[in-house]
Amino acid sequence: MTPIADIARLGTPCLLLDEQRMSRNIARLSGRLLSLGVPLRPHLKTAKCLEVARQVMATQAGPAAVSTLKEAEQFAAAGVRDILYTVGITPDKLDRVVALRKTGVDLAIVVDNLQQALAVCAKARETHDPLPVLIEVDSDGHRSGVKVGDALLLALGQMLNCGGTELRGVMTHAGESYKCTGVRALEEAAERERQAAVRSAEILRAAGLPCSVVSVGSTPTALFARSLHGVTEVRAGVFVFFDLVMAGLGVCTVDDIAISVLATVIGHQLEKGWTIVDAGWTAMSRDRGTWNESENRGYGLVCDQAGQALSELILQETSQEHGIIRARTIGRGEELPVGSRVRILPNHACATSAQHDQYFVLDEHQRVTAIWPRFSGW
Amino acid sequence: MTPIADIARLGTPCLLLDEQRMSRNIARLSGRLLSLGVPLRPHLKTAKCLEVARQVMATQAGPAAVSTLKEAEQFAAAGVRDILYTVGITPDKLDRVVALRKTGVDLAIVVDNLQQALAVCAKARETHDPLPVLIEVDSDGHRSGVKVGDALLLALGQMLNCGGTELRGVMTHAGESYKCTGVRALEEAAERERQAAVRSAEILRAAGLPCSVVSVGSTPTALFARSLHGVTEVRAGVFVFFDLVMAGLGVCTVDDIAISVLATVIGHQLEKGWTIVDAGWTAMSRDRGTWNESENRGYGLVCDQAGQALSELILQETSQEHGIIRARTIGRGEELPVGSRVRILPNHACATSAQHDQYFVLDEHQRVTAIWPRFSGW
Repeated sequence: MTPIADIARLGTPCLLLDEQRMSRNIARLSGRLLSLGVPLRPHLKTAKCLEVARQVMATQAGPAAVSTLKEAEQFAAAGVRDILYTVGITPDKLDRVVALRKTGVDLAIVVDNLQQALAVCAKARETHDPLPVLIEVDSDGHRSGVKVGDALLLALGQMLNCGGTELRGVMTHAGESYKCTGVRALEEAAERERQAAVRSAEILRAAGLPCSVVSVGSTPTALFARSLHGVTEVRAGVFVFFDLVMAGLGVCTVDDIAISVLATVIGHQLEKGWTIVDAGWTAMSRDRGTWNESENRGYGLVCDQAGQALSELILQETSQEHGIIRARTIGRGEELPVGSRVRILPNHACATSAQHDQYFVLDEHQRVTAIWPRFSGW
Repeated sequence: MTPIADIARLGTPCLLLDEQRMSRNIARLSGRLLSLGVPLRPHLKTAKCLEVARQVMATQAGPAAVSTLKEAEQFAAAGVRDILYTVGITPDKLDRVVALRKTGVDLAIVVDNLQQALAVCAKARETHDPLPVLIEVDSDGHRSGVKVGDALLLALGQMLNCGGTELRGVMTHAGESYKCTGVRALEEAAERERQAAVRSAEILRAAGLPCSVVSVGSTPTALFARSLHGVTEVRAGVFVFFDLVMAGLGVCTVDDIAISVLATVIGHQLEKGWTIVDAGWTAMSRDRGTWNESENRGYGLVCDQAGQALSELILQETSQEHGIIRARTIGRGEELPVGSRVRILPNHACATSAQHDQYFVLDEHQRVTAIWPRFSGW
């Protein structure tokens, strides 16, 4: 593509997207899942961007996973037809679900308790729309979901199946995999996630209930699963961009991280070794994902304008529009004069992206070739 | 005003603004500064909302402080004419400053080093616009600014004064006051801030340099200063809304906090005492401001839909669109059925507001009377 702007002319702070790295990240997971014979349902919550969605989805109609109904509506308006809304439904959101389904979108929803299931059944009967439902299973105690083996699973399955909805299957998310370090721990997390979903599906099927979908996924487990036997689809989101948390787990390297925040040096406090830039938490988010890891990267790892990591410099502190860069270890680190540019790799790609409303897309020569809008809200 | 919506009908998550509390907060600081005889230059970065700006500014034309040039441009378009951009200028932003000033806005900028001053002088000569400049002074080691007594102050003053700019004065921000607890520590922080600014002004004036503005401010020091002798204006922002960090410092009470995030219960993990809601970090921000305080409030303090704090419930954990509510101490806390609503008070009003693009404004009967847009970006 033809360059449209010089990176040196961009106003700062702004969000850069290295398209080559993104394509490589997408190819890596796609190749992995192809070898395991399971399709990807990419989670569009990380990028919230149609252009990224089009590169990561198998077809222009999906499948896709979303975290908000606004994502579902936005991507549906662009032609996506197979969408899973992965956050447990609340009764008051069902009218929006029904309205979107009326436009021809196969939007499926998620429940993990009887109150939700009752509300979904009532809405299905009221609207004569057999709302497709997945039952969420808790594979690792991370957040939501029915415990594996809990009698609630069958109760939910039966209620949904005879209550006017389409019981489509089960889903789980191994959120605790974000705390695993090393190949073995990641492989084990993936296997626990697979077993929880497959076993739950077997319980439903053994009771004569339908369960065509067995959906699992998180970026770490998607990349480290050795078997996906019994699984029908894998969801993952952050793999598109990667971030320092993923690099800290060994899921990617720092060189795989596709987004960064471009910032300009405002000033210094030389006796403290501080370089002050115009990227604060409004640009980076307040996510301190790596604090629990052995290697503290503050609010991000500092690179030069071309994207080369400046060995020891991290974004140590942020306020609303100021960031303080300092050397991680003793010493002053590189000299960065006032007006010079740096790129800061984020702790958490989802959270940093969410602070911006557009991506400045870079080609392999670090030239800006496009500006891709992103949205937020609900 | 006539109610336009029932709070129970709002889609969640969303940001609520209690207008009565906001008005009370504004009256409190205004009264305080009136008694000390110093005008307020409200910082509009917290709300980024024209309707809030109009209530907090002394006149519809200002004065006002902003943290981004986008704020300056947005508020200028609505008639604000006296604006201080409080983040140290970068050379590449000067063209936007000049362009906005050409529309008749008295936009002043901030520097704390010679490279910035050189760039500003060059732009002033190039454009024949005597750009008004404040020199930033470091009163507490928090972030940017010239150390009090450093020869750099006079060097900057002389360069700006004879370089084609308007040397307007000095400014400082006692950011370390956010770590002070108790009246005495807050009073001392305010006095250090005042002294740093006044002493720097005296040094400039003693050298025959102009210094008409002596600008100080942070919400804690603005509210606890016992004297503002020698100060010509006070900047403060978060006082409009307040938050749990401010309540933790003793600067306000929890009942003063004017914003909250409305959320709906999705489900539970009863054996862990968890209630799961549809407000994650996209709704609350990742700000954990209160972690360093004695009282851990997680990502926020949970209230019922009417705004009454539910004694012991906090938002313990957040992921992108999920929040986990649990009791701070032992026990399961209140029962919150699926579909019920809670309001979550934020750690940091600036950060939580920044996650939203509108405020649902409540009257004293907790009815929605208006929707006020807010903006973000740079």
